[in-house]
Amino acid sequence: MKTRTGIGVDLGGTYIKYALGDESGKIIKKGKKPTHADAKNEVILANIADAIEEMKDYAAAHRLQPLVVGVGTPGCVDVDRGILRGGTPNFRYWIKVPIAEELNKRCKLPVFVDNDANVMALAEAKFGAGKGHKNVICLTIGTGIGGGIIINGALYRGSNFAGAEPGHMSIKHDGRACRCGGRGCLELYASATAMITHFKKISKKAGIAVEKNINVKRIFELFASGNRQAAQTIDLSTYYLGRGIANLMNIFNPTRIIIGGGVAGAGEVYLKRVENSAFAFAMNEAQKDTKIVRAKLGNNAGYLGSIRFAFNQLDARR
Amino acid sequence: MKTRTGIGVDLGGTYIKYALGDESGKIIKKGKKPTHADAKNEVILANIADAIEEMKDYAAAHRLQPLVVGVGTPGCVDVDRGILRGGTPNFRYWIKVPIAEELNKRCKLPVFVDNDANVMALAEAKFGAGKGHKNVICLTIGTGIGGGIIINGALYRGSNFAGAEPGHMSIKHDGRACRCGGRGCLELYASATAMITHFKKISKKAGIAVEKNINVKRIFELFASGNRQAAQTIDLSTYYLGRGIANLMNIFNPTRIIIGGGVAGAGEVYLKRVENSAFAFAMNEAQKDTKIVRAKLGNNAGYLGSIRFAFNQLDARR
Repeated sequence: MKTRTGIGVDLGGTYIKYALGDESGKIIKKGKKPTHADAKNEVILANIADAIEEMKDYAAAHRLQPLVVGVGTPGCVDVDRGILRGGTPNFRYWIKVPIAEELNKRCKLPVFVDNDANVMALAEAKFGAGKGHKNVICLTIGTGIGGGIIINGALYRGSNFAGAEPGHMSIKHDGRACRCGGRGCLELYASATAMITHFKKISKKAGIAVEKNINVKRIFELFASGNRQAAQTIDLSTYYLGRGIANLMNIFNPTRIIIGGGVAGAGEVYLKRVENSAFAFAMNEAQKDTKIVRAKLGNNAGYLGSIRFAFNQLDARR
Repeated sequence: MKTRTGIGVDLGGTYIKYALGDESGKIIKKGKKPTHADAKNEVILANIADAIEEMKDYAAAHRLQPLVVGVGTPGCVDVDRGILRGGTPNFRYWIKVPIAEELNKRCKLPVFVDNDANVMALAEAKFGAGKGHKNVICLTIGTGIGGGIIINGALYRGSNFAGAEPGHMSIKHDGRACRCGGRGCLELYASATAMITHFKKISKKAGIAVEKNINVKRIFELFASGNRQAAQTIDLSTYYLGRGIANLMNIFNPTRIIIGGGVAGAGEVYLKRVENSAFAFAMNEAQKDTKIVRAKLGNNAGYLGSIRFAFNQLDARR
């Protein structure tokens, strides 16, 4: 049987990442452009539509015919209707958007939409680090922290498509306010954004000027070169992430916890510390068969999962 | 078809509660005795065996024949083998106990063992406040806080029988150490035990002597009579419980959250405040169709669920 081709879009707080790929997890061509998360919805939709056109053009030039578009977006998605309903604190206007309908108008392909962390989790569970495991939790560490929860082999979306947001589990009830309406949420302490905040605060306290445009990659570089503030930042961020993971172990007792997103790219330096914190605080029984592993598909998980998810939906509708 | 009779045992940190009942949720006869959670395992097992004998004698005198014993115990249980494996911080020695085997020796009936909060959740989902709902979380507020999680209609036990411990979800990463190995666990702030601790602390601060043998029931009585420290205690405990529930809403997006255990007996005074806190902090999308309700079966849930669970296991083995 011929493997079908589709287009996957991974809408992040910073970048739109997209690809032409197939349902078995193969990437044919990929691209990336800024999201402009503060822009009006028409701008974001037009940017996504441009990305899809780019992939369609590439496909046409290579005699391929994409059959479907899958989109992973932050926030709560009505998967049945492809409507973003809410819960996107890292965007300015991106709420109540009929994404599937709007993009279908522009690109003339069936469009399916799910939460970004859900599609990433699906990709990792199907093709990546969770392959063969029944109970898996995926955490995507980026601008925020997204989550995907696989229970007994199936994606758990909650009763109202609104579950699976462990990034908005509070780990400090009296912590600072989160844009989600909560307080002390995990992502305020352990996201990539939080890591930069920690670094600035620690550097300021030490009386050291922070270089302009500091980012997570640079913090890991500084750490590698022996920078003390970078080391403290990584210790702090991984401590917090481990605390959140310990909570999830006590609740879910999964066999795999998969860490994805830009921060996970740092590899063992990061993962080992997360593990130390999580295993120190989780209940003994809940951590016995659990491994914390790095996502295997890296930044490809979002669009690969979107493509896979879109084909699942397409097949379910037929 | 005749409804079968069984014996259910609900082992709590303070009391052993037990009953002769049937698989449809009917109670025929019940009893209660102190647990002595600090005693050696032989003492606790002998007490449970006595309770079972008492029910067997009653059954014999009334021409009934119990077919099975179900036991709900705190901690992590290997349900397949009826062995308590660990995670019982409120007991002194109650760890690594082959409960099913030990009780079967003493009472000559098939014995099945599960986590206490699991069997309570099963009872509430089957006969009580969660009837007809697919995604339900039960929290038992007592000496500690136990949890039972029903996902897509089935009890979720975790990969290693060790999940579903939301009482050991930390809501204050820098909070005080919990006996589970974690820090700042929900049950340190929102259990019945915690409520008494809050009351003592608040009263001490106000320079008011606390009556001897203060308990949760008495705190609610004091509250009803206008006692200010009792009011502050209830506000604080419900605030914390609501924070934990908000976390669970963001993760599970269930349609029912059921509060059981002694504290829930206080009714609306308590529940309304828990609701206020939970709905104030949970994400909008995650709380839309969610109701926080009081367990319907009260203290009967533990043994009723144990009986039901035991018949489920008996039938599954046949």
